[in-house]
Amino acid sequence: MTTASLARFAAELRFEDIPTPVVRRAEDLLVDWFGSAIAGHGTRPVETIAAFARAMGPAEGASEVLVGRGTSSPYFAAMVNAAASHVAEQDDVHNGSVFHPATVVFPVALAWAQALGASGQQLLTAAVAGYEVGIRVGEFLGRSHYKVFHTTGTAGTLAAAATAGHLLGLDAVRMQHAFGSAGTQAAGLWEFLRTAADSKQLHTAHAAAAGLMAASLARDGFTGAAQILEGSQGMAAGMSSDADARKLTDGLGTRWALAETSFKYHASCRHTHPAADALLAVMQAHDLRADDIAEVQTQVHQGAIDVLGPVVDPATVHQSKFSMGTVLALVARFGQAGLAEFDAHFRDDATRAFHDRVRMALDAEVDAAYPRRWIGKVTVRTRDGRVLEGRVDEPKGDPGNTLSRDEITAKALRLAAFSGGASEAEMRDAIGALWRVADAAKVGRLLGAQA
Amino acid sequence: MTTASLARFAAELRFEDIPTPVVRRAEDLLVDWFGSAIAGHGTRPVETIAAFARAMGPAEGASEVLVGRGTSSPYFAAMVNAAASHVAEQDDVHNGSVFHPATVVFPVALAWAQALGASGQQLLTAAVAGYEVGIRVGEFLGRSHYKVFHTTGTAGTLAAAATAGHLLGLDAVRMQHAFGSAGTQAAGLWEFLRTAADSKQLHTAHAAAAGLMAASLARDGFTGAAQILEGSQGMAAGMSSDADARKLTDGLGTRWALAETSFKYHASCRHTHPAADALLAVMQAHDLRADDIAEVQTQVHQGAIDVLGPVVDPATVHQSKFSMGTVLALVARFGQAGLAEFDAHFRDDATRAFHDRVRMALDAEVDAAYPRRWIGKVTVRTRDGRVLEGRVDEPKGDPGNTLSRDEITAKALRLAAFSGGASEAEMRDAIGALWRVADAAKVGRLLGAQA
Repeated sequence: MTTASLARFAAELRFEDIPTPVVRRAEDLLVDWFGSAIAGHGTRPVETIAAFARAMGPAEGASEVLVGRGTSSPYFAAMVNAAASHVAEQDDVHNGSVFHPATVVFPVALAWAQALGASGQQLLTAAVAGYEVGIRVGEFLGRSHYKVFHTTGTAGTLAAAATAGHLLGLDAVRMQHAFGSAGTQAAGLWEFLRTAADSKQLHTAHAAAAGLMAASLARDGFTGAAQILEGSQGMAAGMSSDADARKLTDGLGTRWALAETSFKYHASCRHTHPAADALLAVMQAHDLRADDIAEVQTQVHQGAIDVLGPVVDPATVHQSKFSMGTVLALVARFGQAGLAEFDAHFRDDATRAFHDRVRMALDAEVDAAYPRRWIGKVTVRTRDGRVLEGRVDEPKGDPGNTLSRDEITAKALRLAAFSGGASEAEMRDAIGALWRVADAAKVGRLLGAQA
Repeated sequence: MTTASLARFAAELRFEDIPTPVVRRAEDLLVDWFGSAIAGHGTRPVETIAAFARAMGPAEGASEVLVGRGTSSPYFAAMVNAAASHVAEQDDVHNGSVFHPATVVFPVALAWAQALGASGQQLLTAAVAGYEVGIRVGEFLGRSHYKVFHTTGTAGTLAAAATAGHLLGLDAVRMQHAFGSAGTQAAGLWEFLRTAADSKQLHTAHAAAAGLMAASLARDGFTGAAQILEGSQGMAAGMSSDADARKLTDGLGTRWALAETSFKYHASCRHTHPAADALLAVMQAHDLRADDIAEVQTQVHQGAIDVLGPVVDPATVHQSKFSMGTVLALVARFGQAGLAEFDAHFRDDATRAFHDRVRMALDAEVDAAYPRRWIGKVTVRTRDGRVLEGRVDEPKGDPGNTLSRDEITAKALRLAAFSGGASEAEMRDAIGALWRVADAAKVGRLLGAQA
């Protein structure tokens, strides 16, 4: 009955049922997603998928393709926007499910809302349905699944189906069919990491497109498996060895998993974020500049050492995002480690020199708290001989240390400026409209035609 | 190196490399597939997918959609034709891989050949590449995979990518990227069987579309995992426990797996076919009519008893395809158990009466030979008291007892007549063109616009 219960929840959720703070957080996540989508402009994998959509789809349609400023059918608009919003690695993440919800939920919500002339409240409600479903499916599939499968691709297909199905007005029965058709298309393998291939964007594009298709087919009477998640030949049977069906319905309607989702503030590996924020804290408290610092020791969990330890001499921007030394250097020099800082400064002399002054050490307290809490601790020795301690109990962007709306806006503006995907004026207009989306009778176009 | 070797084979195969009997068999399979595709006309799951393609795709394009007589982009034409050719359950099957190649290979081959203006020899070569790849991937994934996954959906995605990639002229490196992008989208779960949902057609639609997309992206420089099949986070790691990498390259270029593929002659469960053919043999040898027969005992393998045994009083057409009594009744009365015979006569009084005169018994010789050989044995008692034995060593359609071109043509005509998807004159024209496809400088349209 678990797939059925989850489908009923996704179908029957009403805007009025969602607590106001959760609605506000959904708006935060929407604006944050919009910045990530614009950040995909001009990147090779995204442009390749966008070209495929133009070749195979209609010349224009009711839904906006944010990179390239075209329009298409909801299917291709969702496909391209989903690819675009997962390339800068700045989109949101839910820690417990290791699932990136925004990149598969909002492209589908925007595409159908624009095509249907839906209201902003309908868009937000559909997005909440997508988050609640996708996060629970990710938690259900568990750690054994994540070892081989990219949960954002697999659970993401269900999240996309829930989002699309809600906007299409599916009842509980048809939503369950949509889940069946989504789950039987769910895919995404980590193997691409070995050769740094482009699959990550294909996974989100596929999840959004396949989930949207599943919901459309269900609306028109196409049937799917009734128990695609927990059935004996379903997703868990085929792709997990530690699935726990109770997680599918955990706190439905009372626990809002959307509100547990974290923003990514720095454009680097999440394992660097606690230390980066702790360093910022100590620099702020003692009014330090980068040049004042002789040495930084970060006290970290074992996982950080496993992932970041091998990166001793980062040669590319991508690799430097996994270098604790480079990340702390950028944070110390510029106050943030964003796409622009990485691109322009990841191997400046000054960055390299600071990089060489950073060390990592295993810390019992930090390691014991992980992964429930990501504590950041640093010990800084200054050139004038002081030894100073910095600490954060949650890295910036986690629910207990979330971004303000000004910070979310600023992050989106930075991403657009970096990619060149939209002017600052265009971004301010679009973001302004998104902050007011709950009042919109119809979700309109976010950007104009190509400038 | 196995994915790499398989990709190189698919990229570099030349028409001249393929033995003439294999080319002729490929033509046989192409005509047989065409009949199955037309058989999908008017069925609800196929029409629903076709409507989705019309809503999300271009109004017209360079590739033919066989059901509904429209055109679209190669992507949607392949998607709809793949759905259409897997609904009548009359499309071909490769026994060793339990994989249905035609339904995922030929839709992609036809769509790209028409869009590119490719020759018939190019279409056939691409199809052979698709068969050789898909069958080996199915054999590689093994029995553990097939227990949960619909191999035609998963291995089929690779087969579609090989077919599309060959027509697009991918070199070995790009073909390997195409395999990476295909494998990371490969999906299809058996869970839908439990509630007889529509997913089977979605699986073939998805495999064809995702494989085609993977090849298009690879042409444009999009990269995929290098070892998506055998890598430690690849398909086998995630979806099989008995994968054998040697099977991926078994006899590449010398063993032609395409020629091992079986045609389905009767429109019923394959477990009924050996007995049906043995009954036909004994009726032909002794010039018997159905009314002459007092009793039939079929000597079968245990698997047939497991699958067919529970079906004692078939209530629907679909169920009656799993009833040994009904199938033998139709064969005895009409000489074949095709879609039309099932639809019109599955519960006639005469069919029911014959049904009640059929029994199954386990046979040691038949059981020992299975699944390598599907031997059919029947003992018939006539009303005038004779006891007659019938036997076939391979059911009709298997490579050692294959269909003649007249039989393949007749089967396609029957399927079209049943579905109403094309007139007999149209079918004869199209089939005539397909028998001569190896001489075609360009693959043209097979059917006219809607009659």
